[in-house]
Amino acid sequence: MNWSRKHLLDIQSLSAEEIQLVLDTAKAFKAVGERAIKKVPALRGKTVVNLFVEPSTRTRISFELAAHRLTADVVNFSVESSSLKKGETLRDTARNLEALNADMIVIRHSAAGAPHFLSRVVNVSVINAGDGSHEHPTQALLDAFTIREKKGRIEGLNVTILGDILFSRVARSNIWALLKLGARVTLCGPSTLVPRTFEQMGCTVTHNVDRAIEDADIINLLRIQHERQRKTMFPNIGEYTNLYSLNKTRFARIKPDALIMHPGPINRGVEIDSEIADCGRSVILDQVTNGLAVRMAVLFLLNGGKGPGELGV
Amino acid sequence: MNWSRKHLLDIQSLSAEEIQLVLDTAKAFKAVGERAIKKVPALRGKTVVNLFVEPSTRTRISFELAAHRLTADVVNFSVESSSLKKGETLRDTARNLEALNADMIVIRHSAAGAPHFLSRVVNVSVINAGDGSHEHPTQALLDAFTIREKKGRIEGLNVTILGDILFSRVARSNIWALLKLGARVTLCGPSTLVPRTFEQMGCTVTHNVDRAIEDADIINLLRIQHERQRKTMFPNIGEYTNLYSLNKTRFARIKPDALIMHPGPINRGVEIDSEIADCGRSVILDQVTNGLAVRMAVLFLLNGGKGPGELGV
Amino acid sequence: MNWSRKHLLDIQSLSAEEIQLVLDTAKAFKAVGERAIKKVPALRGKTVVNLFVEPSTRTRISFELAAHRLTADVVNFSVESSSLKKGETLRDTARNLEALNADMIVIRHSAAGAPHFLSRVVNVSVINAGDGSHEHPTQALLDAFTIREKKGRIEGLNVTILGDILFSRVARSNIWALLKLGARVTLCGPSTLVPRTFEQMGCTVTHNVDRAIEDADIINLLRIQHERQRKTMFPNIGEYTNLYSLNKTRFARIKPDALIMHPGPINRGVEIDSEIADCGRSVILDQVTNGLAVRMAVLFLLNGGKGPGELGV
Repeated sequence: MNWSRKHLLDIQSLSAEEIQLVLDTAKAFKAVGERAIKKVPALRGKTVVNLFVEPSTRTRISFELAAHRLTADVVNFSVESSSLKKGETLRDTARNLEALNADMIVIRHSAAGAPHFLSRVVNVSVINAGDGSHEHPTQALLDAFTIREKKGRIEGLNVTILGDILFSRVARSNIWALLKLGARVTLCGPSTLVPRTFEQMGCTVTHNVDRAIEDADIINLLRIQHERQRKTMFPNIGEYTNLYSLNKTRFARIKPDALIMHPGPINRGVEIDSEIADCGRSVILDQVTNGLAVRMAVLFLLNGGKGPGELGV
Repeated sequence: MNWSRKHLLDIQSLSAEEIQLVLDTAKAFKAVGERAIKKVPALRGKTVVNLFVEPSTRTRISFELAAHRLTADVVNFSVESSSLKKGETLRDTARNLEALNADMIVIRHSAAGAPHFLSRVVNVSVINAGDGSHEHPTQALLDAFTIREKKGRIEGLNVTILGDILFSRVARSNIWALLKLGARVTLCGPSTLVPRTFEQMGCTVTHNVDRAIEDADIINLLRIQHERQRKTMFPNIGEYTNLYSLNKTRFARIKPDALIMHPGPINRGVEIDSEIADCGRSVILDQVTNGLAVRMAVLFLLNGGKGPGELGV
Repeated sequence: MNWSRKHLLDIQSLSAEEIQLVLDTAKAFKAVGERAIKKVPALRGKTVVNLFVEPSTRTRISFELAAHRLTADVVNFSVESSSLKKGETLRDTARNLEALNADMIVIRHSAAGAPHFLSRVVNVSVINAGDGSHEHPTQALLDAFTIREKKGRIEGLNVTILGDILFSRVARSNIWALLKLGARVTLCGPSTLVPRTFEQMGCTVTHNVDRAIEDADIINLLRIQHERQRKTMFPNIGEYTNLYSLNKTRFARIKPDALIMHPGPINRGVEIDSEIADCGRSVILDQVTNGLAVRMAVLFLLNGGKGPGELGV
């Protein structure tokens, strides 16, 4: 199949074949990152705007580097100094970027649906870099890429996602991607943050962490985001750590070939024991490296690339 | 004629021929923005510094993209993290940028005359990107470009500028450009903000909005800048909107081929009705697109380009 | 000799030959800055990350321009919007940048030793752009370059450094570089800020400014950093200016060919008289220009360049 979408707004609307196509393209780009000269001219003369209405460094830099390596020009537009603060609507900001001949807008926004909204009001490719608690599609793609790279497959694997599922865009995008690709997904965390309604998506829900991790091939730990946590729904940090952290006792009981994932930035000693984060079965930094390749693939495909065959890198 | 200036400090000191030369050069660059690869190598190896001592996103990004498309390197220098905060004088900051072999400084500053001052203390091309209430020359050039593009001419047109004229650098630069190019300029707004002294420049001054717009070929609405408005001189927003906003009633009475302009960011429902901002006679987004071409032309000419003939794009 | 280090962490551990090699390489790069097209492709496809955990404009821009002129890609990572604020450790931040295939990290940090720490935890070249009160090696290299350029040699010269020596990373790096290159170094300032312990490094310490400057070939004035000054150790500004400023009376008594240096940004009227800062014997702006060449040399050498012979610019 060939890629035909103009936007990457979510994982929910992608087919398994489309996801696989992104992963295959990313694999070709990963090789570029290992060469002495890490650039290809695929997006020469194109302009990527990082429209980050919510602060981020990690994702912004990953997209910025991905664009650089495709030889695109990048402009960073952050909320701190922006006209959004002067009362301009998001639609007007985006239409201005379109009028400046931007080719792609990478948007992070605290409101779920903001990227979808943008895609309807501008004639520019829109990439969702995280919208509220809704989706963070490139994170799910890089997670899937990492699982496939390390395990050789995704289908049939047991993947456990641990933490604040309810308010996590990472969890939501991962659930969609993993289920589409044939994994079994178990969600675990405090009952206020992991409601039974997720069973309707096809996941297993449990509040017993030991049960959640015992058969897992992949354990994906979400970041406890103090700054976003709703106080009424979240136990205190110490209690969370006692009940849900991947500590050494729990780590000793998981499958010997289970892999540990985390979208970062990690809170050492909170959701994960510090030594476990650095152990050989942690693929946290592989995720970061793969994120660059996945974002190059996404920028390439949305700009009219058809797939890895056409790439020739 | 050939371009011979080193700086673009204001419109007041330009001749009509010089303005036309910028517009002709911008026309050639506008075609570049419509190609698949939007870059030309005209400024390869040159360094443009955006020295924004007053916050701005729109203008900064427009200059940044213009420089990218000419293959220049761009460095952003904003006041938030700058040595200006450590008590360095503006002259010393600029001379440091000169010592770093910067080729052009694009300066926005709250003090009128700051760009002129810089041009006397450094041997680098200086571009005024807005100085206090004084001038914003590239805005006037892109407005003139847009009028000429849409109407085929500027001479003899009736242009009405509506809003806070007294404190507006956009108004001041527009008045100079339009009068030099042969338009008739009418200024309208609250009497505290549109004093009769502007008649000495050759404008018509009125405080009656209906009279101001009835014969206008162009209606240029200025942004109501809450953050800068002097309270003693400005009615409240509701009162301003009642008296001076371009609402549907007023819009129904303007000439059928009159065009609506606005330097942005727009306050929907304040100085302009939201639907009018988006209607077919609004050229607000054309202004943004043309701003990129005009700024490419300005960077090109100040770097030693002679005019569109030499450009060959 | 050939360059063989992977990091530039301090001056203390460099040999005189290594320092000379950087200066020789910088001399070749200075010629690049005087050409119409100031770029060379030496670092094409390489990524330089400016990790500025302490605010800076001057040094950040100098490194950014140096990287641009070597055709590297540059990403700015400042503390204001960074994941460090979300509680990520410096080690994790750096390992993430490594995972993103960054080739070099330029770090400024308020903690002495932060660059050394980074160099042990990541497999990426680390450049110290100032760590606490410890070292600022590229500043010392550009100062040495400037002295050698202007005086033809460093060996045997009398260099006086004036100001807050105790808390100055600029002073510490300069002392190491100058002593290694054979200069005689005199330190002067209030006794609380210039303790006798510096004599153990091989410097002369005096609290009498007239004696400190009378035989100096070079007078290097440090910036009085109000924002960092410990109140218990610092006289008030007026008292400092009276006792230690390079004013006209003192300037009249220095050697007729003595040169005035300052790392900038200068406080006119505090540590230096405004006219003296601008006089023909001040090489303050030469330092800025040379800083660019020195930083190009450092980036080039750390990326595997062997020396100026190989450069061929």
